[in-house]
Amino acid sequence: MLDAATELFASRGVAASTIALIAAHAGVTGAMVHYYFKNRDQLLDAFIDERVLPFVLSVWAEVPLAPPADAIGMVLALADRLMAGLPQRPWLPPLWIREITAAGGELRDRMLQRLPLPRMAVFAASIAAAQARGDVHPDLQPGLVVLSILGLVMLPLAAPAVVDKVLQPTAPKPGAALDAAALRRHVHALLAGGLKPPSLARSAL
Amino acid sequence: MLDAATELFASRGVAASTIALIAAHAGVTGAMVHYYFKNRDQLLDAFIDERVLPFVLSVWAEVPLAPPADAIGMVLALADRLMAGLPQRPWLPPLWIREITAAGGELRDRMLQRLPLPRMAVFAASIAAAQARGDVHPDLQPGLVVLSILGLVMLPLAAPAVVDKVLQPTAPKPGAALDAAALRRHVHALLAGGLKPPSLARSAL
Repeated sequence: MLDAATELFASRGVAASTIALIAAHAGVTGAMVHYYFKNRDQLLDAFIDERVLPFVLSVWAEVPLAPPADAIGMVLALADRLMAGLPQRPWLPPLWIREITAAGGELRDRMLQRLPLPRMAVFAASIAAAQARGDVHPDLQPGLVVLSILGLVMLPLAAPAVVDKVLQPTAPKPGAALDAAALRRHVHALLAGGLKPPSLARSAL
Repeated sequence: MLDAATELFASRGVAASTIALIAAHAGVTGAMVHYYFKNRDQLLDAFIDERVLPFVLSVWAEVPLAPPADAIGMVLALADRLMAGLPQRPWLPPLWIREITAAGGELRDRMLQRLPLPRMAVFAASIAAAQARGDVHPDLQPGLVVLSILGLVMLPLAAPAVVDKVLQPTAPKPGAALDAAALRRHVHALLAGGLKPPSLARSAL
């Protein structure tokens, strides 16, 4: 039933996915869905807890608890874990844009309440510590780095129609340029170069 | 009337903003709205053409028609024009996320049809030319750079509630860290450093 819900949430949005539709899509009765989930709120909770949260937590679980020597490596590793999990979850980027990022998204509060905030705070503090050592560009906002990663990774995957349109000039085959490896190289280059302190680059000129 | 529509689109979404609601919000009759816009489709066209498109075109109009010597400067200037126009248009980032980026967004096709694609193609070609000269990191996808800028800039502005939550660890006052200047420094550092070819940075080590 959660598989059916996931498919409907991705294709129609959460608001339009009634229990009756989910039941029909799963090939069960509405009564069966009610038996398992009681109501719509509990179905949404179960969807977040079983389909979305385990992946989010796995992305964050390996962030070191103490500031690591290599903060840029820590950031790239987080982006890599995110990108590595998305090919098996093609429904996640559009769902994330529509239901979690967009104002009024039905899953936003549920997700915000479950974010691993202490781990995210350690991540930001590790970036700030690296800035204090001169290892990360001082102009970066440590707390914004997570959103920057999400923006760089999720946006192209959430809007393939837009990507096809804007990539057309350089990519002859629609969508061809957006294989996972190309996106990973692109995001790595921006993050790795962008996080570096300016002194390293400047002294080379 | 378009002011009223803009406010409702941003706060309730386009789908929920009926002509009756827009008329009530503007303090006119539904008949008046119909008199000016005939129907909902023409109202949405007018909204895009008068409120969104002029800004989008102004951001793109200054992209040089021939590949410039300084491609990184061209990218930063585009990001700057975008960021400079958003404080007067606080409704645009959430609207962009929900109605243009998200699947099923009611303004997506209207906007895609009006994108200045030739200018966007020149922009991507200029980045590719700079890569060929060794002035821009070879791992970047030229066609993805626009989406990267949008992701870096629009996402934090579209989801202030999320930003407050993830910035909390480093920013004592909610929202305090996301003034326009801080976001600009953050985006500049990521783009300027991220676009640089690796040889410049490496030779400094």
